[in-house]
Amino acid sequence: MQPLVMLKMARSLSRLLTGCQRFASPPSVYAHLCHSSTCLPFRSSFVRTMGALPFSFPLKPRDFSLPNSAWSPEMTRLYDFYNNQCEVENESGEKQKGPWRRLPSYNRTLKYATGGAYLSKFIQSKNRLFTRSIKTAGAAFEYVMFLNKEEQRCVCIFQAGHLLEGPPGHVHGGAIATMIDSVTGALAAFMSGAVMTANLTINYRSPIPLGSTVLLESSVDNMEGRKTFISCKVTSTDGSKLHTEATALFLAIKVSHLLGM
Amino acid sequence: MQPLVMLKMARSLSRLLTGCQRFASPPSVYAHLCHSSTCLPFRSSFVRTMGALPFSFPLKPRDFSLPNSAWSPEMTRLYDFYNNQCEVENESGEKQKGPWRRLPSYNRTLKYATGGAYLSKFIQSKNRLFTRSIKTAGAAFEYVMFLNKEEQRCVCIFQAGHLLEGPPGHVHGGAIATMIDSVTGALAAFMSGAVMTANLTINYRSPIPLGSTVLLESSVDNMEGRKTFISCKVTSTDGSKLHTEATALFLAIKVSHLLGM
Repeated sequence: MQPLVMLKMARSLSRLLTGCQRFASPPSVYAHLCHSSTCLPFRSSFVRTMGALPFSFPLKPRDFSLPNSAWSPEMTRLYDFYNNQCEVENESGEKQKGPWRRLPSYNRTLKYATGGAYLSKFIQSKNRLFTRSIKTAGAAFEYVMFLNKEEQRCVCIFQAGHLLEGPPGHVHGGAIATMIDSVTGALAAFMSGAVMTANLTINYRSPIPLGSTVLLESSVDNMEGRKTFISCKVTSTDGSKLHTEATALFLAIKVSHLLGM
Repeated sequence: MQPLVMLKMARSLSRLLTGCQRFASPPSVYAHLCHSSTCLPFRSSFVRTMGALPFSFPLKPRDFSLPNSAWSPEMTRLYDFYNNQCEVENESGEKQKGPWRRLPSYNRTLKYATGGAYLSKFIQSKNRLFTRSIKTAGAAFEYVMFLNKEEQRCVCIFQAGHLLEGPPGHVHGGAIATMIDSVTGALAAFMSGAVMTANLTINYRSPIPLGSTVLLESSVDNMEGRKTFISCKVTSTDGSKLHTEATALFLAIKVSHLLGM
């Protein structure tokens, strides 16, 4: 790799990371940094630079939060419901931002995206975000999150695949905990920047059948200094059945601490 | 498939399920039934019957709790430490059961193993236990559990693979919650038979680097009627660093309820 290209990549990646941190990076000690759904997508300068590289690297990372053929009609319906509220028309017929915002979701961390010494690790790293590590559509975690800034809420539409089994025919408690951590972490990160999960308290009320689509709704309970308190409910999509209730506590952190800088 | 073979399979599977239930099946609403690590391995009568079938089905399911090439030296050392205490010599030099027992671990549920109407579903089911759904050695959850009946304790040696990432370079909080649910659920199931997770309360103290091996130690705090209270600590293998602390509540259930019978 030519030094100039390396330098351009390092700069681009460095800018990218800075952007992510500024935006309010993500979930947690137990959430994610720049592969998190709260992260900005790749910038064009980065894409251009990567395009000149003499090795294979996806120019445009896959956004796992977009619909695919494995999504159930119910999941697609709910996606459309929230997605249609991401951009709305005002009285003059002009399009403007709506109350909701869809969070893109990638499977690679950008933890090494500080350029220079970490660059090769970034390219070579096999690490994948836990919830996106199985690529087969519909097999594991299918989900998309939407944020409502004004209401300080995050909703997640989650379809549980057949690789998430715990009790016979039902979703593993750990898989539910994983989604709760992810959703509450995304909201906490949106509110407070980079955060780490400090506590999860989960009450399982009713098992979730494999293959079903459920709704996770989280909201901010309180904020005190570095602490963000979030609550979350997992229900059937019509809200009639409560599957799980949870509270979560997140602590704001310096990202550099996690990156070992 | 010939009716006689079907019948023999149904009977064998039925006996198998009965055995699992009697033994104290597994973790949870949020743990597992017969693919759980607390379950008896396949009986020989079942294996013989399956061998006569005109389609491919593994005669001997893979026990994921046995060492493989991806295990770190530390994981292997700890495995040997506990495994050597599963069978000990008495004063006369005779071998006898030791204080610890290794729990085998499979990736398929036997939920449909009630014979008859459910049999084809059992064979065809794509469902896999969440913690064993990725087969690539070392990529995700590598773990083995040991039970100490007298001390009412369960230890788990856990090596976190690169597909479990949450914060950059560290294990996802949901993956840690998953292991905590699995280990406490195995102990609760050993104590109380089939159980469901009712509550998990998890305090994250220090992030776990990807690739590292940690120890989960769980013990019974209390038992009241249908309730089993378990606590769990996740530490470095030498015990010097506390990563996570948790308590869990499990409720005894009738397996038939989960199977929809």
